[in-house]
Amino acid sequence: MKKTIGIIGGMGPLATVKLFEKIVLNTRADSDQDHPRTIIDSNTRIPDRTRNILSDGENPTNELIESARCLERAGADFLTMPCNTAHYFMEEVLKEVELPFIDMIKETVNTVKKEFGSSKVGIFSTDGTISSGVYTKVLQKEGIEYVLPSPQSQKAIMELIYNIKKGQYDNDLTRFFTAIDELHSQGVQTIILGCTELSVAADMYKFPDSVNYVDALVVLAREAIIGAGCDINS
Amino acid sequence: MKKTIGIIGGMGPLATVKLFEKIVLNTRADSDQDHPRTIIDSNTRIPDRTRNILSDGENPTNELIESARCLERAGADFLTMPCNTAHYFMEEVLKEVELPFIDMIKETVNTVKKEFGSSKVGIFSTDGTISSGVYTKVLQKEGIEYVLPSPQSQKAIMELIYNIKKGQYDNDLTRFFTAIDELHSQGVQTIILGCTELSVAADMYKFPDSVNYVDALVVLAREAIIGAGCDINS
Repeated sequence: MKKTIGIIGGMGPLATVKLFEKIVLNTRADSDQDHPRTIIDSNTRIPDRTRNILSDGENPTNELIESARCLERAGADFLTMPCNTAHYFMEEVLKEVELPFIDMIKETVNTVKKEFGSSKVGIFSTDGTISSGVYTKVLQKEGIEYVLPSPQSQKAIMELIYNIKKGQYDNDLTRFFTAIDELHSQGVQTIILGCTELSVAADMYKFPDSVNYVDALVVLAREAIIGAGCDINS
Repeated sequence: MKKTIGIIGGMGPLATVKLFEKIVLNTRADSDQDHPRTIIDSNTRIPDRTRNILSDGENPTNELIESARCLERAGADFLTMPCNTAHYFMEEVLKEVELPFIDMIKETVNTVKKEFGSSKVGIFSTDGTISSGVYTKVLQKEGIEYVLPSPQSQKAIMELIYNIKKGQYDNDLTRFFTAIDELHSQGVQTIILGCTELSVAADMYKFPDSVNYVDALVVLAREAIIGAGCDINS
């Protein structure tokens, strides 16, 4: 019997659409019934994660717990969450449910290690993800060298992320592409797209091919399909 | 307080992705929190609807009830269902839950009436939808004249629907476009895209502009946003 995927979503909603779409398009299937059952809570009541980590924004933990419980009640067999920043709060959340969790951060770092070995890694993510060390702690633990964008580049990355959250897709990418060049000139060969809005951007725009990208959302989609006991479309 | 949308999905999963995406992209929002909370059960265990209506395929009613209950348990305030054919079974399903239901068929016919008045309408849908009279009963009640595709055209429509369900997107559309011409030559001015796989196709391919199309999935997305108390992006 296949397992049911649970998705704690809404952070943002379009990133949740993209994870769901990637799960569907990457499953090998000849009929509806070959796909994994997937229960999604696109819970847009979850407060902004970065705003809580960096300033006095409301703590999202309670709403994350509410979503995890909602999915457990609904019948999910395991949880996933297409928001990198929100992984910071998951230790508390997972105490409140009985379900296993596919950790997007750990799986992404594993993929980097498997596919690109000891290459120097750049991290593109929200200010909240960076300041809370969501990626850097796991990279350090795995002994992978990393570089963070300069403050100016980080600002360009955050601007793109929040524009996409607002539904603004017609963006000038000059400063964002400069951020990529900047890391590349520091010896970075692989950039982690560690914010689901950047995964949305990667589907929408053509990024420069001077570096490799590891898209956390793509990694999570594949792990979710495997976790559900379905086959990957190769 | 905004209301929570419930989506009985999985029929097929990609059509469910598309409804979710249309809800997100058509909501006027400046942040995650402006979007409606949306709970989705992409329940791919629901047996094939057309196969049950036309031959001896398993009855989908029990799995539809299971999904409706799952969404009620999870906290949905009302239900929607992005599968035209499955509307045939909803009378039984809705007896088992307390939630209101936005009926995609009725809303689509209302839209046809509002936007195109007394023009002659064509119906593109599965054999199951046609043989069970899902659309024709509502059109008759509203006094709207309709034309069904010829058996040969209906075969071309079904082939496209099942190819999309299988994830086959590189399709020869010649016979499908002939089906459109055929209805047009019979005086049809508006075609209802009354199968969610055809909504997926309408996003993927350029349909001839000899007729108007009313896409049931677009109609449902807009009604769901309004039902949730959110604003439409115009």
